[in-house]
Amino acid sequence: MRLDIITAVPELLESFFQNSIVKRAQDKQLAEIHLHNLHDYGIGKYKQIDDYPFGGGAGMVLMIEPIAQIIRQLQAERTYDEIIYTAPDGGRFDQKTANKLSLAGNIIILCGHYKGVDERIRETFITREISIGDYVLSGGELAAAVISDAIIRLLPGVLGDETSALTDSFQDNLLAPPVYTRPSEWEGQPVPPVLLSGHDAKIQDWRYEQSVERTRERRPDLLGGE
Amino acid sequence: MRLDIITAVPELLESFFQNSIVKRAQDKQLAEIHLHNLHDYGIGKYKQIDDYPFGGGAGMVLMIEPIAQIIRQLQAERTYDEIIYTAPDGGRFDQKTANKLSLAGNIIILCGHYKGVDERIRETFITREISIGDYVLSGGELAAAVISDAIIRLLPGVLGDETSALTDSFQDNLLAPPVYTRPSEWEGQPVPPVLLSGHDAKIQDWRYEQSVERTRERRPDLLGGE
Repeated sequence: MRLDIITAVPELLESFFQNSIVKRAQDKQLAEIHLHNLHDYGIGKYKQIDDYPFGGGAGMVLMIEPIAQIIRQLQAERTYDEIIYTAPDGGRFDQKTANKLSLAGNIIILCGHYKGVDERIRETFITREISIGDYVLSGGELAAAVISDAIIRLLPGVLGDETSALTDSFQDNLLAPPVYTRPSEWEGQPVPPVLLSGHDAKIQDWRYEQSVERTRERRPDLLGGE
Repeated sequence: MRLDIITAVPELLESFFQNSIVKRAQDKQLAEIHLHNLHDYGIGKYKQIDDYPFGGGAGMVLMIEPIAQIIRQLQAERTYDEIIYTAPDGGRFDQKTANKLSLAGNIIILCGHYKGVDERIRETFITREISIGDYVLSGGELAAAVISDAIIRLLPGVLGDETSALTDSFQDNLLAPPVYTRPSEWEGQPVPPVLLSGHDAKIQDWRYEQSVERTRERRPDLLGGE
């Protein structure tokens, strides 16, 4: 998988891509991440990338031309399965979307910033608009990092233990059960005895019950099923 | 506001906190962020912070003692309004929660990692469990960054333009309207003429209509109220 991330502040993402599971995926040559600095494509002497919104109001808007230039340059080099724009009014990102995107070959992620991008960029280039949640961030960079992490950890070979991702929350519409590790008793609080019993079937039953109960309490909407 | 973030991989967050709006908030002394490396509190010669889950299964579990030690040390120094744990089975983070948390004085955020933390940590210390969305990440660090960014940008004085945050998506249960900037025509695509009209009242009406229409199309659930 190849991810091209277009951002006005690539330095914000550097330590994430150099330290996370995404780094491991790159080292294993399972994923390639390229950060593109919007400022390198700015217009005129001052390398302008944003301007005031037509009609007035607070905030700045990312201009069309620098973004169009990067996207077209990338498209000339290879075909992209998706050109994603991160925005609070996009479709809500969830595990199903992550699973689906993890099957793609090449993806561009354009990070929103300030008040957003000129609408014509969205109409012309973007194939999928994604919001990571119902809250506003100061830029789309964290959203791009979230999407990258969620997708890349699903690529075969990235996680140390292949079965680990399959027992995560959401993969089966259930939240994960509680987990415990040593010590078996801490300040008067014991681990549930079944986990120390050695009876694998009973442990699996207990975990399933806990998952269902926890989902019912915290996220009954997931049990409604789609 | 003071944020104490407890993580097994503080280096993952460094460039974010050094480059984002959070940095600006720190420079203006509107917020203080402290990253605490869980490994500094590890147990024994090997500074152990995680162990296998009781009952078997994939993934590692963060141990109680190192986390308990940091939290108690911080609590001895000041009172915390919230001790947040980032986890996919937490309550869903949204703009209302961000608004509320932005009024707090001191907050601890404990980043989940691997399969999560020993459940007894959650029962003993955590006042609020937060999920930033219905997807699984390889750690809670990005979630902590998202929560920090969403909260800190709301602190008075952090954003350059005080009115900017109030016109964001979600603050009034409406998505933001489309935005445009120069050029007024690009490759045959003009800006909506009303935005060039100079009639402020008409522009405000148009933006409101666009917000409502966009919300109806993309997120009718927001209009339904709660």
